[in-house]
Amino acid sequence: MRIRDLATPAVIVDSAVLDANLAAMAAVRPGRSLRPHVKAHKCTALADRQRAHGHDTFTCATPREAIGMAAAGLGADLLLANETVDVQRLRAMARNEDAIITVAVDSDETVDAAAAAGIQQVLIDVNIGLPRCGCRPDAARRLADRARARGLGVRGVMGYEGHLMVVADAAAQRIRVAEAVDTLLRAHADVGGEIVSSGGTGTYHLHPADITEVQAGSYALMDSHYAAALTNSHGTAPFRQACWVLGTVISVSSEWAVVDVGLKALGMDHGNPVIDGGTVWFCSDEHTTFAMPTRPMVGDRIRVIPAHVDPTLAQHDAIWVIDGDEVIDRWPIDLRGW
Amino acid sequence: MRIRDLATPAVIVDSAVLDANLAAMAAVRPGRSLRPHVKAHKCTALADRQRAHGHDTFTCATPREAIGMAAAGLGADLLLANETVDVQRLRAMARNEDAIITVAVDSDETVDAAAAAGIQQVLIDVNIGLPRCGCRPDAARRLADRARARGLGVRGVMGYEGHLMVVADAAAQRIRVAEAVDTLLRAHADVGGEIVSSGGTGTYHLHPADITEVQAGSYALMDSHYAAALTNSHGTAPFRQACWVLGTVISVSSEWAVVDVGLKALGMDHGNPVIDGGTVWFCSDEHTTFAMPTRPMVGDRIRVIPAHVDPTLAQHDAIWVIDGDEVIDRWPIDLRGW
Repeated sequence: MRIRDLATPAVIVDSAVLDANLAAMAAVRPGRSLRPHVKAHKCTALADRQRAHGHDTFTCATPREAIGMAAAGLGADLLLANETVDVQRLRAMARNEDAIITVAVDSDETVDAAAAAGIQQVLIDVNIGLPRCGCRPDAARRLADRARARGLGVRGVMGYEGHLMVVADAAAQRIRVAEAVDTLLRAHADVGGEIVSSGGTGTYHLHPADITEVQAGSYALMDSHYAAALTNSHGTAPFRQACWVLGTVISVSSEWAVVDVGLKALGMDHGNPVIDGGTVWFCSDEHTTFAMPTRPMVGDRIRVIPAHVDPTLAQHDAIWVIDGDEVIDRWPIDLRGW
Repeated sequence: MRIRDLATPAVIVDSAVLDANLAAMAAVRPGRSLRPHVKAHKCTALADRQRAHGHDTFTCATPREAIGMAAAGLGADLLLANETVDVQRLRAMARNEDAIITVAVDSDETVDAAAAAGIQQVLIDVNIGLPRCGCRPDAARRLADRARARGLGVRGVMGYEGHLMVVADAAAQRIRVAEAVDTLLRAHADVGGEIVSSGGTGTYHLHPADITEVQAGSYALMDSHYAAALTNSHGTAPFRQACWVLGTVISVSSEWAVVDVGLKALGMDHGNPVIDGGTVWFCSDEHTTFAMPTRPMVGDRIRVIPAHVDPTLAQHDAIWVIDGDEVIDRWPIDLRGW
């Protein structure tokens, strides 16, 4: 099958670019020093490709991601880097005998829910500056004690400096990440355990060796948001755009054209998508209106670059893997939902 | 089952508010003078409720919506109010012998694709100001002639004034809608046919009787964007919020709390969601960080009001229908995808 034959909108991923991105990250963060975050793609086939590049530990954002990874035989060491008090879902994770699933906790309630559900191991999630989850750094020791008293193994700490993924001034980013890392390492000294888990695609290069693992996900497929951020911090982006939402031009006027890729096929929280060589005007439910120097024709195929890859992939059933013009595989996006 | 028992995030719809919204619209636009747009909910069970309020013609944005509506026995008169040159999907629509499916066309290519696929009837889609689909008004006659020459029945015209759904000045909105309507009626005079289809939830009250049908969808469930717009134009919104994304508080700090409703459970193109009585700070993939005067507790349930209902519903598997605290039904969101 050729790209031309795909019904649109369709997520396409360039196999060679994906492999180059995975290799570039594995060179900096080999093996278990990277715990790839599957929330960026929600696709066990892509996770399997990451395993082929040497990583067999994975990060998940939802119980369904963890359970789906375990079912796909990718459960050697899964981290739910998120809080939940849903006892049914915690139990479903705990029942996975072939998988090791560690759960993040940041409160008495999440510790108690994990223990009650039969979860074996936790990480203490420490707030290192992003106003989201994570306990206060000075509460980490008490929480670890509570977890151990409840019979939970405490493998260490995690903290996510999401507010520092994109910082305009690269020097300022380095300093602020170092401060966040310092906070996490001090909490780790209180908690103990072998794991210090942190970071993402915007900061993977800034973590010292005592951060034992980085939770990057977007690096595999990339989006326009991270491409701009990494170009800013690195001079040139170390990862290339590997995925697009392929669309068909369905309407053309003298000033603009319309492609059938809209809000329901794109994550919009980082703004409009990008069309190389064109100017995006706006998106509607099933449309993106754009202008091009050379007017496209109805039926033309257009590659739309998402501004945020994670919520984009979550809206699609499958990834179509391409090699040049050839469609060489279909990977189900099988970890959607909760 | 009670709301308390639902796993989160979950779309909940208040049955009584939904019925009140459907009744309020049916009072202004009864029977076939409204062609409810199913893209707002993608749910055949909800469409069936709209039919119970007197509407048996429906608007769709994707072939899958049209085919799914036909399969659910709701195919008395379906309009694909969108362009496609996907011959396979056009053929799948044409094959539906129990349904009447009319397709919008705005170019030679879309006319020819419809004819080649065996589609029987079209509407000429006319651009009335929104830079998206629709032919130039002065091209409508030629396009209708081409369609008839290809053996297609031309049922009339449609035009969508999407740029006028939300206008700060109500008087200016009335004038501009009247101008758009005038453009559409002049094109209709050129084209002929019994249908003049237009409008949406932001303008349904501004169309004269010679607009034979209005394509509103969001009125059924509502969102914060339309609530603000309709309050502005009406003084008080004629439709109430009938749907929320229910979440669970998973983390609490002294200044903020986190609910497990994030970017992957919300349409974000109209900005952040609303939490009544609270202040939303920001959303992440699986989280919304917010503040409340009274600090919530981990495990509390929170109702999140989406800023844009259409792309929100498209991210969920099902609607949970509620009556007070009781969950009385589960409606699959069965028209997702393309």
